[in-house]
Amino acid sequence: MAEKMMGVVYHGKGDLRFEERDIPTILDPRDAIVRVGMSSICTSDFHIRNGAVPIAKPNTILGHEFAGEIVAVGDAVKKFKPGDRVVANVETFCGECFYCKRGYVNNCVEGGWYLGCRIDGCQTEYVRVPIADNGLIRIPENLDYEDVLMVSCILPSGYFGAELAEIHPGDTVAVIGCGPCGYTAMMCARLFGPARIIAIDRHDERGEFALKNGWADVFVNTKKEDPIEVVKRYTDGRGADSVIEMAGKDESFQLAWKLARPNGVVSLIAMYEEDQRLPLPSMYGKNLVFKTGGVDACKDQMLVDLIAGGKLNTRPLITHKMPLNDIMHGYEIFEKHLDGCIKVAITPYER
Amino acid sequence: MAEKMMGVVYHGKGDLRFEERDIPTILDPRDAIVRVGMSSICTSDFHIRNGAVPIAKPNTILGHEFAGEIVAVGDAVKKFKPGDRVVANVETFCGECFYCKRGYVNNCVEGGWYLGCRIDGCQTEYVRVPIADNGLIRIPENLDYEDVLMVSCILPSGYFGAELAEIHPGDTVAVIGCGPCGYTAMMCARLFGPARIIAIDRHDERGEFALKNGWADVFVNTKKEDPIEVVKRYTDGRGADSVIEMAGKDESFQLAWKLARPNGVVSLIAMYEEDQRLPLPSMYGKNLVFKTGGVDACKDQMLVDLIAGGKLNTRPLITHKMPLNDIMHGYEIFEKHLDGCIKVAITPYER
Amino acid sequence: MAEKMMGVVYHGKGDLRFEERDIPTILDPRDAIVRVGMSSICTSDFHIRNGAVPIAKPNTILGHEFAGEIVAVGDAVKKFKPGDRVVANVETFCGECFYCKRGYVNNCVEGGWYLGCRIDGCQTEYVRVPIADNGLIRIPENLDYEDVLMVSCILPSGYFGAELAEIHPGDTVAVIGCGPCGYTAMMCARLFGPARIIAIDRHDERGEFALKNGWADVFVNTKKEDPIEVVKRYTDGRGADSVIEMAGKDESFQLAWKLARPNGVVSLIAMYEEDQRLPLPSMYGKNLVFKTGGVDACKDQMLVDLIAGGKLNTRPLITHKMPLNDIMHGYEIFEKHLDGCIKVAITPYER
Amino acid sequence: MAEKMMGVVYHGKGDLRFEERDIPTILDPRDAIVRVGMSSICTSDFHIRNGAVPIAKPNTILGHEFAGEIVAVGDAVKKFKPGDRVVANVETFCGECFYCKRGYVNNCVEGGWYLGCRIDGCQTEYVRVPIADNGLIRIPENLDYEDVLMVSCILPSGYFGAELAEIHPGDTVAVIGCGPCGYTAMMCARLFGPARIIAIDRHDERGEFALKNGWADVFVNTKKEDPIEVVKRYTDGRGADSVIEMAGKDESFQLAWKLARPNGVVSLIAMYEEDQRLPLPSMYGKNLVFKTGGVDACKDQMLVDLIAGGKLNTRPLITHKMPLNDIMHGYEIFEKHLDGCIKVAITPYER
Repeated sequence: MAEKMMGVVYHGKGDLRFEERDIPTILDPRDAIVRVGMSSICTSDFHIRNGAVPIAKPNTILGHEFAGEIVAVGDAVKKFKPGDRVVANVETFCGECFYCKRGYVNNCVEGGWYLGCRIDGCQTEYVRVPIADNGLIRIPENLDYEDVLMVSCILPSGYFGAELAEIHPGDTVAVIGCGPCGYTAMMCARLFGPARIIAIDRHDERGEFALKNGWADVFVNTKKEDPIEVVKRYTDGRGADSVIEMAGKDESFQLAWKLARPNGVVSLIAMYEEDQRLPLPSMYGKNLVFKTGGVDACKDQMLVDLIAGGKLNTRPLITHKMPLNDIMHGYEIFEKHLDGCIKVAITPYER
Repeated sequence: MAEKMMGVVYHGKGDLRFEERDIPTILDPRDAIVRVGMSSICTSDFHIRNGAVPIAKPNTILGHEFAGEIVAVGDAVKKFKPGDRVVANVETFCGECFYCKRGYVNNCVEGGWYLGCRIDGCQTEYVRVPIADNGLIRIPENLDYEDVLMVSCILPSGYFGAELAEIHPGDTVAVIGCGPCGYTAMMCARLFGPARIIAIDRHDERGEFALKNGWADVFVNTKKEDPIEVVKRYTDGRGADSVIEMAGKDESFQLAWKLARPNGVVSLIAMYEEDQRLPLPSMYGKNLVFKTGGVDACKDQMLVDLIAGGKLNTRPLITHKMPLNDIMHGYEIFEKHLDGCIKVAITPYER
Repeated sequence: MAEKMMGVVYHGKGDLRFEERDIPTILDPRDAIVRVGMSSICTSDFHIRNGAVPIAKPNTILGHEFAGEIVAVGDAVKKFKPGDRVVANVETFCGECFYCKRGYVNNCVEGGWYLGCRIDGCQTEYVRVPIADNGLIRIPENLDYEDVLMVSCILPSGYFGAELAEIHPGDTVAVIGCGPCGYTAMMCARLFGPARIIAIDRHDERGEFALKNGWADVFVNTKKEDPIEVVKRYTDGRGADSVIEMAGKDESFQLAWKLARPNGVVSLIAMYEEDQRLPLPSMYGKNLVFKTGGVDACKDQMLVDLIAGGKLNTRPLITHKMPLNDIMHGYEIFEKHLDGCIKVAITPYER
Repeated sequence: MAEKMMGVVYHGKGDLRFEERDIPTILDPRDAIVRVGMSSICTSDFHIRNGAVPIAKPNTILGHEFAGEIVAVGDAVKKFKPGDRVVANVETFCGECFYCKRGYVNNCVEGGWYLGCRIDGCQTEYVRVPIADNGLIRIPENLDYEDVLMVSCILPSGYFGAELAEIHPGDTVAVIGCGPCGYTAMMCARLFGPARIIAIDRHDERGEFALKNGWADVFVNTKKEDPIEVVKRYTDGRGADSVIEMAGKDESFQLAWKLARPNGVVSLIAMYEEDQRLPLPSMYGKNLVFKTGGVDACKDQMLVDLIAGGKLNTRPLITHKMPLNDIMHGYEIFEKHLDGCIKVAITPYER
């Protein structure tokens, strides 16, 4: 193990630098040190860079999506040993508090979003993972890093959105936003047996990607058709049984509740930058349910099981792959959606 | 059966008249005619009088809360016959459509709020009840009209609010608003086994009424104490597991979500006159659930069973009683909360 | 419409005759008369023939699985008119009683299994269907009779078994019995997102049929392998999260509970001819849930929607097709599983 | 702290001795040592004495129901410190395994029934409690030992039985067996809002105790009345929505399923000494659900909260109280139900 490593460090608003850092060591008996085998870049990394995440600490290595191999574990780690292949959970949680016991791990009294935000993350070569027994999931033998990389963040986010939406067999589900999390929401919505998933976006190529991969059954380009009319056409005039809102804009918020049939469920998983207007008088009697919030990533083991069983496949999301040496270029093509980029996989530094 | 009767007729905004009308007759084979034994006045009647209910039709007898005796039934009525004692459901519904089959009877494709709004109601002597098999509930022998009068409207409204709130044994429930529906929400919340119910209002006498009747365990007067602090004191700093908002104001809406613990449920049953601001960025990660809407009164039979079994008691809500002759006086004391008035029971016209 | 038709008539134990009968007419305003477009033969028809169904009435035309076209409706039928293409529900139910309102339609106080058991069924040319609004489901334009024929009986039976089993995304489900209902249980189990479905039977060709059609992920031939060992291998030594027992034998009953992990659910949908031994002391602490019974066919509309949406496909079950003229031959090949027979589709009589 | 203490030791079938033992010490960092403030005697203690509990180890101090004060904690104990007042959980569990995460703590891979069975229990002066963070619950200031003593075993057993029974507001619940666990099942069934609880037993005084304390609404003495008839009288001829079987005999098993209405739930929490006959052909179409097993004591904190909030009260169960010096006499009166004995509270040894 060398003593230095390269990583993307956040130095304050607008200031990301790819630079040399010390390799981390065990600080707490529940820690594990993981050698990063594959990592990725998330929209949240831009939110930090833009200064929009108040809890983010300057001088921190970014990145919270990764898989790799354990190189060291603290004395209190029970489930893992060096050599184990693992994928990480974006959330750090104790597993024992009031919230964790109920599956609300992102409200853990001891945890939350730490990796790549408040402590060094994974856009580098080695990572210290706190409370490793909860923060890491073993990778089954028949899977490789590309199979499970999305389990860190966007697959559980999509699952969370789909689970909240209370989908039943035979339902019609509308998903607003054909970005990475919209896609994983569609895949996961499928697990609940709906009759159809209707994807909604403003870009044909994004919708067609969902159709081509079998994630959606119908695509509506809002610039060409009224999605409310399309959804009603498929539901005998009622509206969608469940709506998953992944776009996070004022228009998409208003569209979400209008798409839902009376007594339907609207799952608001997007991160909104503005307060929203809830027109309760206009929707009186429609008896809608709104579920708000960020991912509760407590189902990662189950998601890995489903990938291993061939029931979920996030590999098509990885459109680009490059070594850590080129990560700043990866930031650019991901941010600008260049070359059809959906997600970038970062492989180890090449010396 | 006389040919004329007296009733409170809505003649347009601000214009209520107590006047003579024809006694109704069967118009559809599913109809029943009920002689009103006891009726009541609801806040919604003022909404109609004030012109705030667009669907309300002028020249209609008001009133949707009543119990009485059946005097005639249409050929298609299966459950009832003349002489049966019944209490009415505020909602008319078919029982067969997509929504009714799921228990969403207030979104019935054929029904909704008709009685005392779009067709003649009960603040009179006889009422024609459409789809009587669904719109009426038989009164058990051991109960009288005063026992069941609240089953028409405010008891199912309170039950709906409590049921939506997903209360579990041991939970802490906050109820905002100590009016008639707030009280029934508390009674019904009790059915789900919470450790405590915290009532919130601005008037001591309203809160003390809830405590005295055993509907609430704790009362907070918002003019004297911060309810958020009180709720946290009882919940190890977390907040209420469930919040039922019955006040319908901007402040009460904002208070509602702040009272809830992370991953809690907020049941918004009040009728709001204004759009509300939903501060999603401020509550991001709190993962709250909001359930909105008006009563789905499909559990009236069960509520009558619970009253018959001694498990619910709404009699204390009836603070005043007078014959139909004096109903306009009843409107006044109910509207102005004179003399501690909570609900007024109207007995038959005295000739 | 001719005045006579041909049909399979049960004349008492062991006595089935293919003979001439009168064409039925409307007897009750809720009736519809359907011209049979396609029908099938069910194992239950043999149970009747063998005298094992006490409620079955001699002199009754058999058959309860069919699709066809409406030729006449009674005055009280609301949803259908002559010319409508429909598929029938094996169960007759009122939709209004205590049980029907809760979805327990096979315990309807007015209904139960009538068609082809207590009143004339469908192995003929015309059928009178009571309470047609509940007993028939409209066939969408894009589907033909072969698509929906299994909706009458074995698809809802499989769905009922799968729904009772409380399957969650990522679960491992074991299905005992690779007959027609075992296959539909597997298809429907898939709707709940399990990681894998393990099919168990004593015949390789039956298991391979499930694998080939993608209904099961793993097949265990109990004559070659211990299914308990196989299931444990896939579940980290725990056992199946859910077990659906479709074989109905003493051995399969005992196998069912042994396959389940602690706190698992065992769905016992098979019709048992013998009382079973429940070894509570041996399973003490395992905390199993057993759900027993026959189909509650209240989800037929949803199943048709899923077929129309391409999410369920029962066509592969129809291995043989022949006109009504040859139905007695159909009985033989179905009973003896000749020529790989799974289900026989009977087309109209050819004159 | 003295070095020796007195306790009830199991020395093999039929051989209990009240004798001197060493005071326990911390053996594992997750241990706590508790000075027993109050303990009790359970029917299970007789099962051990009678040789009917194969896992029980000779030379073990009996007893698993107790409250007391912590005198020492291991390094890994996070929630407690010496001086804390606590009540113990009969079950030892890790809180981290597949089963514990789902609330199935009695199937914990590391735990199960240890205290007073496989390791020294509480019918003595000091106890070593393994995995103390899960095995102990803090006693609120406003409660004393008598308030919470039943939280160790029979209150969670009753809660488990009631929770499994899927009781809804307005339901009718039948509880077979008016012993200590029958009583706690009734109290806990009340938390789910049933319209009535019907207690069934063969002894008037046991039933009257349930009525007097408000735990049951109706009592049926099976020697005088047919409980099936009584239950039908209260349920419009249908049967109980939920049945909780706490008697554990052949007759009570058969009675349980006959008491249930179609599609009802039967909760079998009793410990049966014999296999039971499940007459599936006779109950075909009744679609019953059977839930079997022993307590999953994962809700103890909630039960303490409900006691603190005045919503549960088990004090009436403690009919006798005596110091540890007299515990062998306590065994006698408890076993023989002398002097109306329901539960015996054992106070500290008096020197």
